[in-house]
Amino acid sequence: MDIKEQILAMGARALAASRTLSTLSSETKNTILLAMADRLEASGTDILAANALDISAAEENGLSSAMIDRLRLDEQRLSVIADGIRQVASLPDPVGEVISRWQRPNGMDITQLRVPIGVIGIIFESRPNVTSDAAVLCLKAGNATILRGGREAINSNRAIASALQSGGESAGLPPNSIQLIPFTDRESVRHLAEMDQYLDLIIPRGGAGLIETVVSLARMPVIKHYDGICHVYTDSEADLDMATAITVDAKTQKPGVCNAMETLLVHSDTAGDFLPEAAAALQQRDVELRCDKKAKEILGEGVKEATESDWRTEYLDLILSVKVVDSLADAVVHINEYGSHHSDCIVTANENRAERFLAEVDSATVFWNTSTRFSDGEEFGFGAEIGISTDKLHARGPMALRELTSYKYLIRGDGLIKGEAG
Amino acid sequence: MDIKEQILAMGARALAASRTLSTLSSETKNTILLAMADRLEASGTDILAANALDISAAEENGLSSAMIDRLRLDEQRLSVIADGIRQVASLPDPVGEVISRWQRPNGMDITQLRVPIGVIGIIFESRPNVTSDAAVLCLKAGNATILRGGREAINSNRAIASALQSGGESAGLPPNSIQLIPFTDRESVRHLAEMDQYLDLIIPRGGAGLIETVVSLARMPVIKHYDGICHVYTDSEADLDMATAITVDAKTQKPGVCNAMETLLVHSDTAGDFLPEAAAALQQRDVELRCDKKAKEILGEGVKEATESDWRTEYLDLILSVKVVDSLADAVVHINEYGSHHSDCIVTANENRAERFLAEVDSATVFWNTSTRFSDGEEFGFGAEIGISTDKLHARGPMALRELTSYKYLIRGDGLIKGEAG
Repeated sequence: MDIKEQILAMGARALAASRTLSTLSSETKNTILLAMADRLEASGTDILAANALDISAAEENGLSSAMIDRLRLDEQRLSVIADGIRQVASLPDPVGEVISRWQRPNGMDITQLRVPIGVIGIIFESRPNVTSDAAVLCLKAGNATILRGGREAINSNRAIASALQSGGESAGLPPNSIQLIPFTDRESVRHLAEMDQYLDLIIPRGGAGLIETVVSLARMPVIKHYDGICHVYTDSEADLDMATAITVDAKTQKPGVCNAMETLLVHSDTAGDFLPEAAAALQQRDVELRCDKKAKEILGEGVKEATESDWRTEYLDLILSVKVVDSLADAVVHINEYGSHHSDCIVTANENRAERFLAEVDSATVFWNTSTRFSDGEEFGFGAEIGISTDKLHARGPMALRELTSYKYLIRGDGLIKGEAG
Repeated sequence: MDIKEQILAMGARALAASRTLSTLSSETKNTILLAMADRLEASGTDILAANALDISAAEENGLSSAMIDRLRLDEQRLSVIADGIRQVASLPDPVGEVISRWQRPNGMDITQLRVPIGVIGIIFESRPNVTSDAAVLCLKAGNATILRGGREAINSNRAIASALQSGGESAGLPPNSIQLIPFTDRESVRHLAEMDQYLDLIIPRGGAGLIETVVSLARMPVIKHYDGICHVYTDSEADLDMATAITVDAKTQKPGVCNAMETLLVHSDTAGDFLPEAAAALQQRDVELRCDKKAKEILGEGVKEATESDWRTEYLDLILSVKVVDSLADAVVHINEYGSHHSDCIVTANENRAERFLAEVDSATVFWNTSTRFSDGEEFGFGAEIGISTDKLHARGPMALRELTSYKYLIRGDGLIKGEAG
């Protein structure tokens, strides 16, 4: 069999598995998940040996130390992954929820029931923990998964997938519920993305290049987790101490993540008071500022000037672009034009202005007097997330178990026919 | 400007319009809709003159009389379209609904709010009424539309779109809320489907060929309304009179629509009693039967034999494939394998068996003792539908106003920061 045929065969097996998976009780699924977590820890020696192969290949191939660190597993990281599985087991099962139920005048009884999506493809890059995190969340929601990881982590991914499968199957997991594609070439991404007869959804987890590739190839729905170009807007009626605290938190608490702030917008009425104070707090934490003309006039010649491309850049680093705006409306226009519709915040003491910002900013999550860093499934109380969707269809913002489900309508009648016509 | 540039410019204008549209009150939107309905009727002379151009072109080009009939407008059909708009005005507005709201232990207040999707592209074939039906539903849900109709109806579509725009704008519709692409070549479909910087969703309304083209080109989410290969399964414990009534209704009440039955499955225990009775009732209504071997043994040599391709065919006509199965499980396997996951029915007096069928058939709508013809937005009480989605993501089954919306999270805090780390 060539690669395409092998991937198609995996698709057919996943579909068969998904039919059984969709009928499992929550209890059975949780038992399976706990067995998977235990097996993952019990297979530590095998997994770490496989990981060592990936690490030495990465070193030979001259990967950066940051990339090698992302690739590296140890006992502690394995325990974190296993505990993540146990946490997913403890979450409520979204499947089987009656979303709504109503009767029609003719007696027709309609139930909208939450059901699994079916088969989900996950394409990811180097971090081997995604193998477990993604498969486990999908499984809890009753879905089969086909995983396609990056070449750098292929040995680690194989070992992890194997532990999850054998541990799960020992507790009743249908075979082929979690499958890892053994190929890491680009063609395997194409075959997976074109296989819409088996795959209901594809989720790329990685950089913009990977997402672009999947978007252009995929025939089935794609849920994208694009960049976060997040803004904090300090309004003319902001409490300046609060604004400084939120600015510092949103930029520096964890700068390398998608919900960190990349651009600070400041109302011109308050810029003279606020900017020097905020700049001092940020510079104390080694943040480089890139300012528009007006901000530069306030902060002096020492600061860098921003270029047009700065407003569209996700730095993921201790760099912040700063712009003075003349009105709340200008802030909204800037955010809707240059942002990535991810997470944006207004700091103001004026409720009317806050509500206007919340209504007009077209982003997945819009904050009032709250750091953008709270744009996160765990912070929302969802327990675990598969990512933060920058799409507007099906899932927007933090995407957790519920967003890994679909629904169906069940209709109960007593011999109802339309009649007439025909 | 070339075609691509013109379509991109339409996209930018639609996005700008959608920002204003999303802030309109329900009252304003309803006033706009009523003005559109009135203007459509007042423009009857112009629209019918434009339609006459399309009809004579169609006749010159030798289109079938069925196609010409679909294309043809008259005063009465225009009134039906206008009344459809008035009905949409009377429906509840989904936008602004608080889907859920909760507080986190840290005081963070989270609201999940229903909002418009933004800009929706609609690609449709010959029926000019889609211009109005689709644009109006999207508008009620606060969305801007870009419409691309077929060549056969271009004059009618232009006249209808122009009436809707001018009527709407007289009552406050933002300009460019409803735009019709003036090109009908295939390249314009490509440009629209690739324009993901402006379009949030694309909905093809038409045959499988059109949907295929859009699916393979589109970079944004597509909601598909594929074939309905719908089944009725008569169980061993069915009330046979009810089974006959539902069979006749599902097949003959309106055979040319997606929720009509195409395949009848009959449990072998009951086939000897049921099939002759059902066949007589169907043949009395001129239904041609295509039977598997066992059904043919019961019904005699007079009936046609089904081929493998019959089980995958949406006849949309007075033709029915018939198969005898040995169990409920076999019926479910057949439906999940050969059906289109649209609408399927079990007739049985046994509740346990019904519930098993409802759970295991993987279709958008699954019926117990109810004709598949009830798979319909109006029958569900949704008021109007844009189609019946055969997708599992975002919208499944009858797709109405609510399915033309997205959501966003609004977070209200009091200076909340994550702190630590960084």
